[in-house]
Amino acid sequence: MKRIQVGGKAIGRSGQPLICTPVIGRSRAAVLDELAALLPKAPDLIEWRVDFFEGFGDIAAVIDMAREIKAAAGTIPVVFACRAMGEGGGFSALNESDVVKLYVAACVSRCIDIIDYEMSNSPVNVAMLREVSRENGVAMIMSYHNHEFTPSDEELSGRFIEAEVLGADIAKVVVMPKGEEDVLALLSATLKASRVCGIPLVSMSMGGLGTVARVFGWVFGSSMTFGFGKHCSAPGQMSIEELRPVLASVQHAVYGG
Amino acid sequence: MKRIQVGGKAIGRSGQPLICTPVIGRSRAAVLDELAALLPKAPDLIEWRVDFFEGFGDIAAVIDMAREIKAAAGTIPVVFACRAMGEGGGFSALNESDVVKLYVAACVSRCIDIIDYEMSNSPVNVAMLREVSRENGVAMIMSYHNHEFTPSDEELSGRFIEAEVLGADIAKVVVMPKGEEDVLALLSATLKASRVCGIPLVSMSMGGLGTVARVFGWVFGSSMTFGFGKHCSAPGQMSIEELRPVLASVQHAVYGG
Repeated sequence: MKRIQVGGKAIGRSGQPLICTPVIGRSRAAVLDELAALLPKAPDLIEWRVDFFEGFGDIAAVIDMAREIKAAAGTIPVVFACRAMGEGGGFSALNESDVVKLYVAACVSRCIDIIDYEMSNSPVNVAMLREVSRENGVAMIMSYHNHEFTPSDEELSGRFIEAEVLGADIAKVVVMPKGEEDVLALLSATLKASRVCGIPLVSMSMGGLGTVARVFGWVFGSSMTFGFGKHCSAPGQMSIEELRPVLASVQHAVYGG
Repeated sequence: MKRIQVGGKAIGRSGQPLICTPVIGRSRAAVLDELAALLPKAPDLIEWRVDFFEGFGDIAAVIDMAREIKAAAGTIPVVFACRAMGEGGGFSALNESDVVKLYVAACVSRCIDIIDYEMSNSPVNVAMLREVSRENGVAMIMSYHNHEFTPSDEELSGRFIEAEVLGADIAKVVVMPKGEEDVLALLSATLKASRVCGIPLVSMSMGGLGTVARVFGWVFGSSMTFGFGKHCSAPGQMSIEELRPVLASVQHAVYGG
């Protein structure tokens, strides 16, 4: 699997998962507060969840906020993500065409490093955003979210591969387990895909049961895990403070400490 | 799955894995040193690995040592385990019939709480030790160790069930993974067996790769994990000090902290 560089950060299987921290403030002030709280915790990446931002309907307000986030984040790469309600999104009521315009504006502004876009959206939009992001030097995560259940191992592997075929820089699969076997299916699918895909993978199993994937996903080929700074953005997320020492201990054990 | 009581300690799936700590001192002095170092760390159980003890050929010396261990351990249950070389044992060169005599003496002395005996030994010996242990109020773990590789998911589930059929109080499966999929097979087998077995299960995947099973096995039905006090007794074991905060953090996350 190839490693990619985004804003000076290497993303890709390296035996050490990157910690990405979501920013989900509703107002500009809340976003700045959140950044002030989480930046000292030195996450590897920041994911701005635009769908939680009250200004999401105003492109200029969104780009202004993105610029402020980027300025605060410094060398930490910023992921721009706007999820629909069905993908676990915030209170965004934008239609898909408005969401696409936001993504385009974010790419063109070049004040974010990565966009994260759902691969099940219209193929025309996926292809267009792939082109616009590439032209502007912005990396693209193509993601598959399922907040209801965990599809089969085979279907999940297929999603990673689909993202690569569609031209993603990073393939991401996030699913909800209903039982312990679903977590094993997600890990198994990640492992299998990691052996055939040429791009970095990110996978996550949500909720309490999914904790094993948040802590050990990197052993099975996931390049990134999520830890919250101030507010949790998905069920089962651990805080950076809890996650970091756990990751350090288990890495020590895995590498024969 | 039923929970069992051993020396006042509840063993069985309860959403919280017990930490068992091995004692592998070669001499009486080394064993006492080890106990002095590990008892303040409050393990849930102690496993005395008799095969590492230089006096293993002398039944009286073994029983004297067991009495001293039990006296030091107080209310912490003591597991008596003598593994052959092929099962990851120490330097024991006893033949099976001498080993069985040691186990019988340990049961009759009633100074240990649990014996751990390999289920692949002669069925006559397994049945006899089951009887002797039961008559003396000693619990019996029937175990399957494979230090070479990890058999299939189905074979591993079968081992847990076999132990229950043979009358074990606890079924234990410890295997060596060659790849990440082997760890998933062990977890999957534990999960499946936990849904059909009526006795507590213990499972472990060794080495660095197996760390995920040491930390998260309890989510998939394993009642016990191993953490060392002073010396590691199997590849991949974490120390109690490392293991305990990791278990606390991941339990917090699993239960929706």
